[in-house]
Amino acid sequence: MAEKKLVEAITSMSEDFAQWYTDVVKKAELIDYSNVKGCMVIKPAGYAIWENIQRRLDERFKAAGVENVYMPMFIPESLLQKEKDHVEGFAPEVAWVTHGGLNPLQERMCVRPTSETLFCDFYKGDIHSYRDLPRVYNQWCSVVRWEKETRPFLRSREFLWQEGHTAHATAEQAKERTEQMLNVYADFCEEVLAIPVVKGRKTEKEKFAGAEATYTIEALMHDGKALQSGTSHDFGDGFARAFGIQFTDKDNQLKYVYQTSWGMSTRIIGAIIMVHGDDSGLVLPPEIAPVQVMIIPIQQKKEGVLEKAFELKETLKNFRVKVDDSDKSPGWKFSEQEMRGIPLRVEIGPKDMEAGRCVVCRRDTGEKTEIQLEELESKVSELLIRIQADMLAKARRHLEEHTYEAADREAFERAFAEKSGFVKAMWCGETSCEEEIKEKMGVTSRCMPFVQKQISDKCVCCGKPAKKLVYWGRAY
Amino acid sequence: MAEKKLVEAITSMSEDFAQWYTDVVKKAELIDYSNVKGCMVIKPAGYAIWENIQRRLDERFKAAGVENVYMPMFIPESLLQKEKDHVEGFAPEVAWVTHGGLNPLQERMCVRPTSETLFCDFYKGDIHSYRDLPRVYNQWCSVVRWEKETRPFLRSREFLWQEGHTAHATAEQAKERTEQMLNVYADFCEEVLAIPVVKGRKTEKEKFAGAEATYTIEALMHDGKALQSGTSHDFGDGFARAFGIQFTDKDNQLKYVYQTSWGMSTRIIGAIIMVHGDDSGLVLPPEIAPVQVMIIPIQQKKEGVLEKAFELKETLKNFRVKVDDSDKSPGWKFSEQEMRGIPLRVEIGPKDMEAGRCVVCRRDTGEKTEIQLEELESKVSELLIRIQADMLAKARRHLEEHTYEAADREAFERAFAEKSGFVKAMWCGETSCEEEIKEKMGVTSRCMPFVQKQISDKCVCCGKPAKKLVYWGRAY
Repeated sequence: MAEKKLVEAITSMSEDFAQWYTDVVKKAELIDYSNVKGCMVIKPAGYAIWENIQRRLDERFKAAGVENVYMPMFIPESLLQKEKDHVEGFAPEVAWVTHGGLNPLQERMCVRPTSETLFCDFYKGDIHSYRDLPRVYNQWCSVVRWEKETRPFLRSREFLWQEGHTAHATAEQAKERTEQMLNVYADFCEEVLAIPVVKGRKTEKEKFAGAEATYTIEALMHDGKALQSGTSHDFGDGFARAFGIQFTDKDNQLKYVYQTSWGMSTRIIGAIIMVHGDDSGLVLPPEIAPVQVMIIPIQQKKEGVLEKAFELKETLKNFRVKVDDSDKSPGWKFSEQEMRGIPLRVEIGPKDMEAGRCVVCRRDTGEKTEIQLEELESKVSELLIRIQADMLAKARRHLEEHTYEAADREAFERAFAEKSGFVKAMWCGETSCEEEIKEKMGVTSRCMPFVQKQISDKCVCCGKPAKKLVYWGRAY
Repeated sequence: MAEKKLVEAITSMSEDFAQWYTDVVKKAELIDYSNVKGCMVIKPAGYAIWENIQRRLDERFKAAGVENVYMPMFIPESLLQKEKDHVEGFAPEVAWVTHGGLNPLQERMCVRPTSETLFCDFYKGDIHSYRDLPRVYNQWCSVVRWEKETRPFLRSREFLWQEGHTAHATAEQAKERTEQMLNVYADFCEEVLAIPVVKGRKTEKEKFAGAEATYTIEALMHDGKALQSGTSHDFGDGFARAFGIQFTDKDNQLKYVYQTSWGMSTRIIGAIIMVHGDDSGLVLPPEIAPVQVMIIPIQQKKEGVLEKAFELKETLKNFRVKVDDSDKSPGWKFSEQEMRGIPLRVEIGPKDMEAGRCVVCRRDTGEKTEIQLEELESKVSELLIRIQADMLAKARRHLEEHTYEAADREAFERAFAEKSGFVKAMWCGETSCEEEIKEKMGVTSRCMPFVQKQISDKCVCCGKPAKKLVYWGRAY
């Protein structure tokens, strides 16, 4: 019976990265497929990661003056249609509710794909004076987008996220908030998830439906593909004009508010997997790992071993620590701890006990150290900090080593033919060039980075004068 | 302009309790009505209460071995129909999704009214052996029930809740878990929300659709009406048989699992309002209050007053504390703090500063005390503990004073005609008697309390031999 739980081999990354990813999410027990097509079940090991993300990100939101609220999950069709670009962007991929109980609805409603329209409808009645501004609201909820192709965490018909929606008295304040929240995301990714990101602005073609400007953080996965990891949108007064959200300013004039929205979703769990994982499974940064230390007793039936294991758990009570006292073999327990990405393993057996020490093994490097028991707490503390730092450094190295520059079309095409990663190249600013590159090479503009640089003076596609440096990539 | 924010008078409880309730939820800025019929917007002051409830209840869940997960929000119609009683109970009040994007769905899906069917479908594939049991999963999410009449928090088409769903190897373990979680709810209500409850079992008529037994906690509102505040259901193996959830037991036999589910929702915020509130608005127990202490500067434009107020905030940093430094008058600030139910108010002005003291005012009693500044932290700590205890004692007194006994039909009818509250009376066990009482008096059986007692030997309705003591009441 115990065999059922055995950690089965997973496909290696180099053999088939997509299959490796699918194997990891399943074998690390993060998700299960459900009988509801395109929707997943997030299992305890996966949901605990999301809970930590929520907690750590929400702390940062609150420090940035954000207040949480909850809006209805349904949007009446007439409300969705109020902002022209927005409805065009979302209407083709929403789920429609047409009946309530046994009766058809007078007006059908969609399940929110995002809640700009609901917040606008609310702000219209809620904001009257400059004293009511800014409004900096956020909600944690699930949203639905009727995708055809789905993949766990990366693209599913329902996913969990947070969506912030703000209203300001001036365009400058809205722009500042858009940048501020992008920085919250970028810092969170680097400091908590150990994922370095490129910050920049989306092109007209890639921006959010209804936004004046979309800012993005782009991360690079182990296979060299990009993942958009968080976005922050500056709406100017576009939605305010469509919805009629006005306030009386200090000068007694009636003015439209300026708005922003920003979101991060369970998709970021896909990034954690694909940035840090290896051929033994998941590798979780200590800051976000639901279990930071797994204590595995060796020869646990020998007298005193289990007691000692639980004694060490007590010693390590300031960390998120567990003892695996199941009746599996130590080898299996090691594999499971590795598959689940638990940052540190502590091995304790009769011989270790005699010598007053234990063996501590790092998940990220596989490095094993013998540690005297009286030093265990301080050493574990040091190791967790070091692992977090090393994982970020490693991911940063990967990002840098897989970011290329291309001065002309030939170099650009060769880079994408021979390598995988980001390619920095100049662009004229025309959507037609983006479309041509996407069609011919399957490559999209990821962002116009905030840190600009002049690589050449010609567009990498059409050769006309270049306006912007762009990060290009194949994306999830 | 400042007038807009003035705390307007609310209807008094004695004049019109329903209107008082509506006034309080609006004026304390807990919710706003939305343009989505029957759905509400939970505003920051309301959502912050829910966040505290989530945090405090989730801690207790985790201590009870509960793991959090997330299931899809959609239930295919065929899945909803698998358990006969369950579908009959819920099908008339669900919202149906019939289209995804531009296309009709092959099978329509409802938005979950509760997730037994989804958990069963998942457990069927997830549970194989006795080693996989128990499964003690919970999710925090929103659910939809297409109610005709809606009221903020008490009954809305969408509401937030948690729903626990467990699977066990034996009927005894399921029964134990059902009771354990009911006790978690009861203790949470008493210790955190200062709401005393009656624990008992629902009659056949009132139990959950598909359950073998439903346990409930019933609270008594200020107007004498009952509010079902949390329920815990023992399903036996009914759902397991309908869904085919089997496991191989230690004796190598294939057996059905035994299941439970249990839930508490944003409805409990309605209970907090109606148990503790008064004619000045909300009164929040310190344990759950998003802001525990509001510091209000008097003559704040005088030199040093605002600085002192923020200094006191620093002194009180171990509590949830705010300074109201807006340009409203102190009187308005007092009214707002009272309306929002903030447990303690600290008043500090030039005269107080000279005397090295401040005035502290309790929201629950209105009692004012002068406190020396050097004692402020310890006194606030003491006061918050005392307020919490006093609020529970007061609510318990109200419950006891409004719980009556009736030995026969005449006394029973007189009790409900003259008084408001719970009436304890004997019952024969027949649904027809419950139906008669409901039809004639608008009174329902709330529960068969765990603590039974023989008031008389005859059913209060039909006069036949009595089987059970029942709490009866008018309910929300």
